Amino acid sequence: MTTAPAPHPAPTRNGARTLLHALVGAGVDVCFANPGTSEMYAVAALDDEPGMRGILCLFEGVATGAADGYGRMTGRPACTLLHTGPGLANGLANLHNARRARTPLVNVVGDHARFHKPYDSPLESDIEGFADPVSGWVRRVRDARALAAETAEAVARARDGQVTTLIVPADLTWESAAPTAAYAAEEPAGGTAVLAGAEAAARALGSGEPAAILLGGAATRARGLRAAARIAAATGARLLCESFPARLERGGGLPVAERLAYLPESADAQLAGVRHLVLAGAASPVTFFGYPGRSSDLVPEGCEVHPLDGPTVQALEALADALAPHIPVPVPPAPARPVPPAPARPTLPTGPLTAATAGAAIGALLPEAAIVVDEANTSGLHLHAATAGAPRHDWLTLTGGAIGQGLPVATGAAVACPDRPVVCLEADGSAMYTLQALWTQAREQLNVTTVVFDNAAYAILGLELRKAAPDAATPRAGALLDLSSPRLDFVALAEGMGVPAARATTAEEFTALLRRALTEPGPFLIDCVVPSAV
Amino acid sequence: MTTAPAPHPAPTRNGARTLLHALVGAGVDVCFANPGTSEMYAVAALDDEPGMRGILCLFEGVATGAADGYGRMTGRPACTLLHTGPGLANGLANLHNARRARTPLVNVVGDHARFHKPYDSPLESDIEGFADPVSGWVRRVRDARALAAETAEAVARARDGQVTTLIVPADLTWESAAPTAAYAAEEPAGGTAVLAGAEAAARALGSGEPAAILLGGAATRARGLRAAARIAAATGARLLCESFPARLERGGGLPVAERLAYLPESADAQLAGVRHLVLAGAASPVTFFGYPGRSSDLVPEGCEVHPLDGPTVQALEALADALAPHIPVPVPPAPARPVPPAPARPTLPTGPLTAATAGAAIGALLPEAAIVVDEANTSGLHLHAATAGAPRHDWLTLTGGAIGQGLPVATGAAVACPDRPVVCLEADGSAMYTLQALWTQAREQLNVTTVVFDNAAYAILGLELRKAAPDAATPRAGALLDLSSPRLDFVALAEGMGVPAARATTAEEFTALLRRALTEPGPFLIDCVVPSAV
Repeated sequence: MTTAPAPHPAPTRNGARTLLHALVGAGVDVCFANPGTSEMYAVAALDDEPGMRGILCLFEGVATGAADGYGRMTGRPACTLLHTGPGLANGLANLHNARRARTPLVNVVGDHARFHKPYDSPLESDIEGFADPVSGWVRRVRDARALAAETAEAVARARDGQVTTLIVPADLTWESAAPTAAYAAEEPAGGTAVLAGAEAAARALGSGEPAAILLGGAATRARGLRAAARIAAATGARLLCESFPARLERGGGLPVAERLAYLPESADAQLAGVRHLVLAGAASPVTFFGYPGRSSDLVPEGCEVHPLDGPTVQALEALADALAPHIPVPVPPAPARPVPPAPARPTLPTGPLTAATAGAAIGALLPEAAIVVDEANTSGLHLHAATAGAPRHDWLTLTGGAIGQGLPVATGAAVACPDRPVVCLEADGSAMYTLQALWTQAREQLNVTTVVFDNAAYAILGLELRKAAPDAATPRAGALLDLSSPRLDFVALAEGMGVPAARATTAEEFTALLRRALTEPGPFLIDCVVPSAV
Repeated sequence: MTTAPAPHPAPTRNGARTLLHALVGAGVDVCFANPGTSEMYAVAALDDEPGMRGILCLFEGVATGAADGYGRMTGRPACTLLHTGPGLANGLANLHNARRARTPLVNVVGDHARFHKPYDSPLESDIEGFADPVSGWVRRVRDARALAAETAEAVARARDGQVTTLIVPADLTWESAAPTAAYAAEEPAGGTAVLAGAEAAARALGSGEPAAILLGGAATRARGLRAAARIAAATGARLLCESFPARLERGGGLPVAERLAYLPESADAQLAGVRHLVLAGAASPVTFFGYPGRSSDLVPEGCEVHPLDGPTVQALEALADALAPHIPVPVPPAPARPVPPAPARPTLPTGPLTAATAGAAIGALLPEAAIVVDEANTSGLHLHAATAGAPRHDWLTLTGGAIGQGLPVATGAAVACPDRPVVCLEADGSAMYTLQALWTQAREQLNVTTVVFDNAAYAILGLELRKAAPDAATPRAGALLDLSSPRLDFVALAEGMGVPAARATTAEEFTALLRRALTEPGPFLIDCVVPSAV
């Protein structure tokens, strides 16, 4: 049972103020907004609710992606403020990613006044239809008296790790509403983890047969990694993590879990020979796409899969206590197999600028406590290895495959953690989906260093085209994957939105710019001109 | 009954080639594309189907908006090629606008292979859920043998003036498919218009009481305008047209229909005193939003509404034949009330650059056969009057209220009509939604002159905020409508995407740049720095 703060005097508060007050009372204090007419009373109410910070985004996909980044880093929801169905629609792709990341996130979507709905005016649309595919909970407020309680419920449901959508008709924002009501939030399940349900996993890990633990969700944070490492040290099991973790803590001596590769052939190689695969917060591994003549299931033939039930981190710790009772934290070298030495940081590169040399520079210079947002796609193939020896940092990835996530997530992460440097590693094609995020970074003076890997192509699709048409000349198809005509000028684009920027064409130039960007406060963009890595 | 062209030899054709062949066979020869892996066989098939022109867009909202512009100008559908649910989601806002414009448009949305669907891989989503709110017809292809026929049906249904969405699983594109099948298209209803159902309208118009005809849909084209003008000349009825016509033909002496104002107070004034309102292809007029204390219905009290049934243009012509049998085309001055003299073109302005002086320059210089795309919002208040005396042109508006339509629609209109100059009049805030359209304009060397009315604000929302909070100081709310910190540099943004651009700060500079842009081929952007017009 949570208790709401004492309400303001009810007679002076309209629905818009009630809405903001209920959000703030439930612990939501940042609103990524791209409002319109139907949200104008909510905007006006910002001046009565100093506890809510409104952050303007020039496109809704920026707002929803920023709320995703904020939620991933704080563990609690930000809200968005979006304008009717089309406004929500513009934010859906990044809500799809947030759903896959299990991010707590509350959408507040304004709608026409209830009396206006029957007139089918131009902006009338099926908001629930747009919201349902990405939301775990959708509610249309039907009564001003319910506004406070339903707002609180939207927040509480989001805290379960999902996207919620609250649709608020405009007339409810200008009517007077009941004061904020207490909302009986369900207590999260207690922390008394037991081994129940994990016996099969324990037997498999203790069998001596080749085993791997695939970590996902909460298990990719420090506590889960440490528990998994104890198990690995005692049993020789390999540690893997899902291909696209929402938030992977790493570096600074944290146990390393190898990410499962995106390309099916590489993932096959990683999993070859595994007899037991324990799933800790991750789904059973599948290919990203289906391909002719191959299975979508990445689990090798003859491999048994053992999912851990219940709260993942507690289950891992119970398993570690059972299998490795004498192994303390930090984990010493395993008796069963040699632990590789802690990865070294790369030396600073010289010469040509490539995805590999840029990765080396990033690995060499990544500062303590950095938040890395990775939407580098093909140019990012080297990044994970290059940064394995870096100081402690977080790694946020493209969880749902809907590109255009990186710049917005970096924006939200920087709002969430103003004292930490954010490094956004971004592919050129993906950058162009939601480039408007740069303007919000400039406006809020967020400490984000964006590296655009500028290879002038949808390189990942070139790879796929060669699979689809291995024997044919495909000049017309190839042209549809080519970003070189005209070449995008990311320096001009960034400066056009108020973010200082510069271009690097050699490893030395890149290193110098990266040093400068990491030292200076505020946003900076490096146009990192590289050949395609694939 | 339409007959498909002779199929290629079936054994060599996979589903992707069948798809493109069926599209081309049904008359679709332009594809605005932002494909991904699941569409790669369709992309590869472009090299086997020279009749289909693929045009790459850097964001799906550009692709769908361009298809809208293309469909409005040609009367037949272009297709889009979009990547699974999130790709479609990014295009939904402009599909909402296309739905409101009743534009023929076919979305081809790739999905995972059927065998891959059960694995819930990251991009898995509810594509039908996203498509339904904007589509008049949605079909998921379930069998390669049905692909050709269902593609043909998607095109035929779109030709009825709606958005259709065909969802194509990837495996159907790589499997071999049956050759293109003939599709039994329904014949459109015949052209034998009668006065049936229009008797009430005829009586009302002949009554001598104050009457107005509100034109929309097909009636805003030349033929409908001429029929309506004959009626007006005979009866004294006023000619109005809906606030946001999909395509209004005007200028060069065409009869003038006054656009119903966006702001409710202005629309009230336009309709005051009207006793009979005849609806010709338009819905009964309503306010765009609902507001406290006023009705959403714009029909004045005591006014009778008379909708015309059936094909609108034919109904208007039948009405004209009945009411004005002796009035020929072109329409002479009306006996019942004086016809205003043909509007004059403004003189070239000098001095400060404002929305009004920029409008005067556009009115003075708009070339013959121009296609004007109008998303100028508050800065566009003067534009319609200023261009009333211009040579014959088309005027395309924001039909669904989902901003971010202008640049994409201009792009598609320029592809549709390569011999006509396109002038895109664009608000700064709206421009930032789908600015990526500029890159496609540069790549395809489209003859589009974009004027960005750069007042550094969501000015229209400032107007609404003053209504919502008339008596309060709202610095925090006001900040959320302000685009001046940092100021967007539209010259840098355009040049960053390969479109030459320049800034105008005086009327003389603007006039010189506009002359230059209209004279030179290819795209050009003018950053037109103006104070807020409201």
